[in-house]
Amino acid sequence: MADAALFEFLHTEMVAELWAHDPDPSPGGQKMSLSVLEGMGFRVGQALGERLPRETLAFREELDVLKFLCKDLWVAVFQKQIDSLRTNHQGTYVLQDNSFPLLVRMASGLQYLEEAPKFLAFTCGLLRGTLSTLGIKSLVTASVAALPACKFQVVIQKA
Amino acid sequence: MADAALFEFLHTEMVAELWAHDPDPSPGGQKMSLSVLEGMGFRVGQALGERLPRETLAFREELDVLKFLCKDLWVAVFQKQIDSLRTNHQGTYVLQDNSFPLLVRMASGLQYLEEAPKFLAFTCGLLRGTLSTLGIKSLVTASVAALPACKFQVVIQKA
Repeated sequence: MADAALFEFLHTEMVAELWAHDPDPSPGGQKMSLSVLEGMGFRVGQALGERLPRETLAFREELDVLKFLCKDLWVAVFQKQIDSLRTNHQGTYVLQDNSFPLLVRMASGLQYLEEAPKFLAFTCGLLRGTLSTLGIKSLVTASVAALPACKFQVVIQKA
Repeated sequence: MADAALFEFLHTEMVAELWAHDPDPSPGGQKMSLSVLEGMGFRVGQALGERLPRETLAFREELDVLKFLCKDLWVAVFQKQIDSLRTNHQGTYVLQDNSFPLLVRMASGLQYLEEAPKFLAFTCGLLRGTLSTLGIKSLVTASVAALPACKFQVVIQKA
């Protein structure tokens, strides 16, 4: 119970810390903090990817890897699965979480929408890092239409 | 399995991030980063403390609270218990962990001893924050004699 909350509390503190000491509140400074968070997520994702059971390293299809992220990775980190996974079958995947744990504590309402990217950057990196360990290069972005739902878009980079 | 490692990976990234962007490598700058980590630990500890089952809020004795930290808090965060708890019965407690998870990955050897404080500051804050939520004001410091063992000294501040 407490341990499930631990990641969430720690994530909140990281975001607060990066923005509290951010000397540059301009769009450039914001971008820098977001990229720091994304980088931390990437390295945590890489490390988590290395811890995965061996059999998962032999996925036959790209789609199997994405399904694995939606189930196993999400459960390990957020104690729930992604709500839906869609793809255009051309290397773009959209993972939708209808109640994303790192956004749930924010009051819902349009006025908080602009704060949302701070709470998504780490997870974008987490997805990209885990995919990287599984041998897939990707670009991951996130968007929010109505809190606390959000979408992560994964675009596979073909070699 | 992966979720148990998540806290550890994230903690490693926080430490790395704070030291990578630390513009001031002087003892003063080091102290600043340590106090940032301690502060993050404090707030996470406070939040974890609030999540504790209600019955634990009615501890009869100070010693019961300390035992609770050694068992329940440690298991929630580190998946193990503290190895020993000693007290002088005058408000000073020494919690010894013979194999502290956040130090285990460091190679053992005297040459790494000076790096150890970075990996203990968050946990000092965690103890102080959890105690604070349970109504006890304290000072918490840590020391390492031989990696990966360490001691946390809790000194209760009487009102």
